[in-house]
Amino acid sequence: MLAQPRIVEEIKTRPVEIGPGLSVGGLEVILMAGPCSVESYEQTRAAAEAVYQSGGRVLRGGAFKPRSSPHSFQGLGLEGLKLLRAVADEFGLLVISEALAVEYVSAAAEYADIIQIGSRNMQHFPLLWAVGETNKPVVLKRGFMSTVQEWLLAAEHIATRGNERIILCERGIRTFETATRNTLDTNAIALVKQSSPFPVIGDPSHATGRADLVIPAARAAIAAGADGLLVEIHPNPAAALSDGEQSLPLAMLPYLVDETKRIALAMGRGII
Amino acid sequence: MLAQPRIVEEIKTRPVEIGPGLSVGGLEVILMAGPCSVESYEQTRAAAEAVYQSGGRVLRGGAFKPRSSPHSFQGLGLEGLKLLRAVADEFGLLVISEALAVEYVSAAAEYADIIQIGSRNMQHFPLLWAVGETNKPVVLKRGFMSTVQEWLLAAEHIATRGNERIILCERGIRTFETATRNTLDTNAIALVKQSSPFPVIGDPSHATGRADLVIPAARAAIAAGADGLLVEIHPNPAAALSDGEQSLPLAMLPYLVDETKRIALAMGRGII
Amino acid sequence: MLAQPRIVEEIKTRPVEIGPGLSVGGLEVILMAGPCSVESYEQTRAAAEAVYQSGGRVLRGGAFKPRSSPHSFQGLGLEGLKLLRAVADEFGLLVISEALAVEYVSAAAEYADIIQIGSRNMQHFPLLWAVGETNKPVVLKRGFMSTVQEWLLAAEHIATRGNERIILCERGIRTFETATRNTLDTNAIALVKQSSPFPVIGDPSHATGRADLVIPAARAAIAAGADGLLVEIHPNPAAALSDGEQSLPLAMLPYLVDETKRIALAMGRGII
Amino acid sequence: MLAQPRIVEEIKTRPVEIGPGLSVGGLEVILMAGPCSVESYEQTRAAAEAVYQSGGRVLRGGAFKPRSSPHSFQGLGLEGLKLLRAVADEFGLLVISEALAVEYVSAAAEYADIIQIGSRNMQHFPLLWAVGETNKPVVLKRGFMSTVQEWLLAAEHIATRGNERIILCERGIRTFETATRNTLDTNAIALVKQSSPFPVIGDPSHATGRADLVIPAARAAIAAGADGLLVEIHPNPAAALSDGEQSLPLAMLPYLVDETKRIALAMGRGII
Repeated sequence: MLAQPRIVEEIKTRPVEIGPGLSVGGLEVILMAGPCSVESYEQTRAAAEAVYQSGGRVLRGGAFKPRSSPHSFQGLGLEGLKLLRAVADEFGLLVISEALAVEYVSAAAEYADIIQIGSRNMQHFPLLWAVGETNKPVVLKRGFMSTVQEWLLAAEHIATRGNERIILCERGIRTFETATRNTLDTNAIALVKQSSPFPVIGDPSHATGRADLVIPAARAAIAAGADGLLVEIHPNPAAALSDGEQSLPLAMLPYLVDETKRIALAMGRGII
Repeated sequence: MLAQPRIVEEIKTRPVEIGPGLSVGGLEVILMAGPCSVESYEQTRAAAEAVYQSGGRVLRGGAFKPRSSPHSFQGLGLEGLKLLRAVADEFGLLVISEALAVEYVSAAAEYADIIQIGSRNMQHFPLLWAVGETNKPVVLKRGFMSTVQEWLLAAEHIATRGNERIILCERGIRTFETATRNTLDTNAIALVKQSSPFPVIGDPSHATGRADLVIPAARAAIAAGADGLLVEIHPNPAAALSDGEQSLPLAMLPYLVDETKRIALAMGRGII
Repeated sequence: MLAQPRIVEEIKTRPVEIGPGLSVGGLEVILMAGPCSVESYEQTRAAAEAVYQSGGRVLRGGAFKPRSSPHSFQGLGLEGLKLLRAVADEFGLLVISEALAVEYVSAAAEYADIIQIGSRNMQHFPLLWAVGETNKPVVLKRGFMSTVQEWLLAAEHIATRGNERIILCERGIRTFETATRNTLDTNAIALVKQSSPFPVIGDPSHATGRADLVIPAARAAIAAGADGLLVEIHPNPAAALSDGEQSLPLAMLPYLVDETKRIALAMGRGII
Repeated sequence: MLAQPRIVEEIKTRPVEIGPGLSVGGLEVILMAGPCSVESYEQTRAAAEAVYQSGGRVLRGGAFKPRSSPHSFQGLGLEGLKLLRAVADEFGLLVISEALAVEYVSAAAEYADIIQIGSRNMQHFPLLWAVGETNKPVVLKRGFMSTVQEWLLAAEHIATRGNERIILCERGIRTFETATRNTLDTNAIALVKQSSPFPVIGDPSHATGRADLVIPAARAAIAAGADGLLVEIHPNPAAALSDGEQSLPLAMLPYLVDETKRIALAMGRGII
């Protein structure tokens, strides 16, 4: 007879409710998808419709989009956020959008259901404190050059202000490899599942930077234990004002759902 | 009606036969497992038996084990290789073992069925040329700080000498993260599947350096498209002369097989 | 006769005035030194006195010090900033201190002569825009995870708002090496000198994380072309509330000045 | 009166003699220069003449040059090594050249005065053991993916075989930065000076990959404490068969010597 195994995955995740009857970290893997930037009503509505038809319940979209270069498109701002909310309401979807500084938190809390903290802001502490004082679920993206320990400490900065509805998001780290935009760290997903109460989702779009790798990366994230996905989609990636090369065309979303559903089922979970 | 998808994974893999009726890169995900170092007959036989009972067909083991420090255990040498062969033959298993320099290639080719090129040797070109002149399948581990492009060029160094029976092995890359020994690069697995004819396997033991992360890493590798696994196991990891902290105890092997089989099935494959 | 050399360093630096008759980027290498955190009047005054006695003209000090862990010392806040100003005035020194978010910019502009943007905030764009609307010199630390190109683009985010008094600061990047806290990137210093109008200083304290390496790192930075140094010093490093292991004891400051002066002279410059 | 300083650089270097009256690690900084690859008699002689006229005493050159791609120029082999020796003898120069595998050690020991171990081979242990059994000075390049600790352990692999005439060479490490080929790690130079008996030289050519950064990188290396330089030069970099973009044209060598001599003097040393 085999001895009792000594090494098992001890999952410590405590689900975070993001909407009525909908939690991240429970049985269902949660799909969050939408455009990198909100560009127009037509573009956002087309993306929202694709999310809805694929069975997704959460629409992502960026309104304030400061970019590495000051000469690139910087987003529609508050108008973009309102537009995102209106389109989501047409389809009964939840909204996730980024608060990119303290002074944007109240708008994000008003129009979005989930507030995202971007990778570059993972250690912008005043912002962590500010979202820690809201009662909204927070998606905390890992800094692309932050260790898992720093990431969990950043989450603590939020939690110590009273808000424990934190969802971690692994979005790839910066390494020497240049064939992909970042390196998806599936080890980190597995590690967080064992050492933290916070659920963790994966962002295969930023983690690869290439649309042709998004689906395999999404599968790998779920197989490592991810509780959800945050995916960039666009009606016309070639014309996208940002991140076109890593956005899935809408027609690919059903394939993403189909492929990741198989992996979710293998993990004893569903996908929604 | 949905438009025709424009982005699909185009898998280019050409299977490599490693034994009668057994190929890497085909329908079956191939499990290769065994101790980091061959330490004794008893230890090696116990590992081989566990591989056999789990349905595995390939036994791994290191005979020549130079280590970062000259004061660490350096392996049993040729005697270790012969011992590995003898034990494998008891169970009808194939053998994979490393040739760590040109002068070891003939012994590896005599006693092993598959020759492994270690991560530190990925760009040791005379060794690549030497195994390129054998007719043995070669597992080419990715340098832990080599790009995918350098890895594929290293494979070409082998192939241009006449031996195209090359199996790539992603074993984790060195990054700034220190919670894990290396970072498993699942992006690279997916990329290689689309851009190279050579099958690719994953080594979740070196890619994590922690036994408690080996199973999730193995799942992630297969979900990204890996054609096999190379896993370190040991009857008594705490007493292992090398790599004990990342070796699975034998009793965990059935769990590894069970969990990875589910993912393999989700990918439309079996595991053996 | 030798052909005309084709490769010479073309230095493009445009000096930035930081006080009456004092510029960064000109003939003099500028020393900025002081404690990581302002802890008390006695500690700050002792550091200021050491700077003054060493011929330095700029006192650094942190007032708002959010740290990776929310349980570490977080700084004295506005009181710390006022204290720093008062002590600097005793010795006629200029003050450099960090504005860690948009809402801290006005206080920093009121009490400091030079506003520092921290490494973690290099791409916190609203903060870049806010300091871009002041008329204060800005020290822009390189993100420890940012490329030179991203760094120069971040400077452009400031400059496009009207403030071109930007001083870059190389403070080490995160790499796989763990023997030092960061890796000082002297290549980046040299590259910036040739490709940007902004002066660049080096921070040997964060770049090494070890007091015993601060002096050689300071020498290397100046030899690569740095226009100044930003150095952490403390009356009693062992008792420092932050960064003690990388702070020079005050008694070492004259040695630092002596060693770096020799290098500055070799570069045809002085140090002040 | 100032208290006794507690933090000083304690230099532990033990000089290694490389020729009659010529040591690395002593008062003189040693310049080693020459072409990446020996391509022809004319090219090698022109480089040797430039070294000689600049006061240098050591000629570098590669004879066996396997490259990442098997389709690139792979060197002249043994003929290249003989040619290098002959040209060096014309000018009374010492020769340093690489032994790229165990089977090349005897030829390198026969024709060169100093045997170089390349960066990719830093942990190719059989090669370390083989040069450890010669009585030649060995330049051990740091693996571009290796920590300082691994580097010093690699040196121990050589030393334990009886040869302690080891010279370390920092040649840049691989990081996320892509503006330069590698990142010169001046921290590592300073650290090795304090923690190892072996002298250390810098290779500003590989550490930058850009001819326009070679001179500032050479200055930084010496300011950090380097005992020598290993520099690639070429009569016509644009036509070089390898590494042209990082080779200094011969006409620049006097400028390199002039600039580094100033830094060496500031360090209390000469250059030869």
